[in-house]
Amino acid sequence: MGVTVPAGHTRAACRAREILDRVGDKWSLHVISQLGEDTKRFTELKRGVDGISQRMLTVTLRELERDGIVSRTVYAVMPPRVDYALTPMGHTLLEFVGGLVTWAEGHLDEIDAARADYDTRAEKATAFH
Amino acid sequence: MGVTVPAGHTRAACRAREILDRVGDKWSLHVISQLGEDTKRFTELKRGVDGISQRMLTVTLRELERDGIVSRTVYAVMPPRVDYALTPMGHTLLEFVGGLVTWAEGHLDEIDAARADYDTRAEKATAFH
Repeated sequence: MGVTVPAGHTRAACRAREILDRVGDKWSLHVISQLGEDTKRFTELKRGVDGISQRMLTVTLRELERDGIVSRTVYAVMPPRVDYALTPMGHTLLEFVGGLVTWAEGHLDEIDAARADYDTRAEKATAFH
Repeated sequence: MGVTVPAGHTRAACRAREILDRVGDKWSLHVISQLGEDTKRFTELKRGVDGISQRMLTVTLRELERDGIVSRTVYAVMPPRVDYALTPMGHTLLEFVGGLVTWAEGHLDEIDAARADYDTRAEKATAFH
């Protein structure tokens, strides 16, 4: 279906895999999704991304900034104010991230049914041993 | 932009986040991408997904099977043969996973430039201290 990163060892393929690992990271997906709504401050992001630690949010934002996906703007006020936003390149990612979120929301029931079925089969398999 | 999982505590929103964590996991993305090409055996997947351990591939496949995204077919031959494939629901995920891969391939240069720029700025900031 032509969507696989080639298993070959071309530089582009290896690099694409590395970048996929970055943007496919669960925290990155959440942060990108949050910033798709609006520019946010650190504390707003921390509140918006359930379960993320201060340290992990710091690391995730730094990597996304380094990749040119997120911009960081410091305002010289007291106390200092720092805003995080998606760059134009970051915005081009939203389509896929948003698509995944919508997919997840739309397949909740189907996934629940699959899990119940799997667990029933697993129980039966255990009962026969 | 309407792509964010709501920060609210509705059951659907929490569940969608959980499912996003699963399919957004870097190994899941790679495995789904590989199975988008064709049905594969465990050893073929292990070869195709650079850097994945046997244990992590086993866990990833089990979770994807439980979620109804991957199917596992055991053939009663000697030695036993096990095939992994995307289910019809799994195929509906390919569009986003493939989109992310294509995005990564298409933004390599832009990301490289952003990183070089970031590292130069970081060096300058250090030099001034």
